[in-house]
Amino acid sequence: MTLMKPYEGEMPLNLDQMKWDSAGLIPAVVQDAKGEVLMVAYMNREALAETIDTGFGTYYSRSRQTMWRKGESSGNRQRVLGLRADCDLDCIVMKVEQVGGACHTGFYSCFYRKIEDGQLKIDAEPVFDVEAAYGKK
Amino acid sequence: MTLMKPYEGEMPLNLDQMKWDSAGLIPAVVQDAKGEVLMVAYMNREALAETIDTGFGTYYSRSRQTMWRKGESSGNRQRVLGLRADCDLDCIVMKVEQVGGACHTGFYSCFYRKIEDGQLKIDAEPVFDVEAAYGKK
Repeated sequence: MTLMKPYEGEMPLNLDQMKWDSAGLIPAVVQDAKGEVLMVAYMNREALAETIDTGFGTYYSRSRQTMWRKGESSGNRQRVLGLRADCDLDCIVMKVEQVGGACHTGFYSCFYRKIEDGQLKIDAEPVFDVEAAYGKK
Repeated sequence: MTLMKPYEGEMPLNLDQMKWDSAGLIPAVVQDAKGEVLMVAYMNREALAETIDTGFGTYYSRSRQTMWRKGESSGNRQRVLGLRADCDLDCIVMKVEQVGGACHTGFYSCFYRKIEDGQLKIDAEPVFDVEAAYGKK
């Protein structure tokens, strides 16, 4: 087999080596222990450091332009079970234990719709009440 | 339960409704039938349309700035098993049957390293020979 370079076996994690994009972000794929993808969110260096440090999913909200401690208001926190980095160090996969649901629409996963036969079809049931979780909107 | 708006049940898939970013792209999370995440790549409108049309994973390569028909040179194609869209229509999750490996480094998944105890640790074995797949580099 051709040897892996430059990463052979084990190396210290250096957050400076992550390939942050021009906005200082990388995408983080969040899935549960069974492999269901719950959401894709973005982390800056601070959010990844805080996620590792606290053991709870922490992101950078591009729309609100602020740190986003998932579940801080809704209680739908994400306890980190494991973290992986990709070959290019420009993406993270994180396994979590999701309290309630991950999606702001009330579903367990943001990916509650399948694409099939030219249609977008909801094939999940909401797991929490968004008004109760976030307040009347 | 609070009702879902504006997407109730089923609606036609309209690629114009996807939230393409300023470069015309969305991230696509690619996982196998068991839920293991193989890679995260980017699709433009043409790549998503071709993926749906052909049933094989097709992306837009940001580094090469061209359509990327995964496996075209290596043979490591991805047969689409299912496609899902997220709440914001700015991300895709795709389940595939992966021939060989997804990663250009020879691993089945691009996420062949875990982050643990401040280290990046390889915890997978290569599944194909990159020289044989891509030619000597």
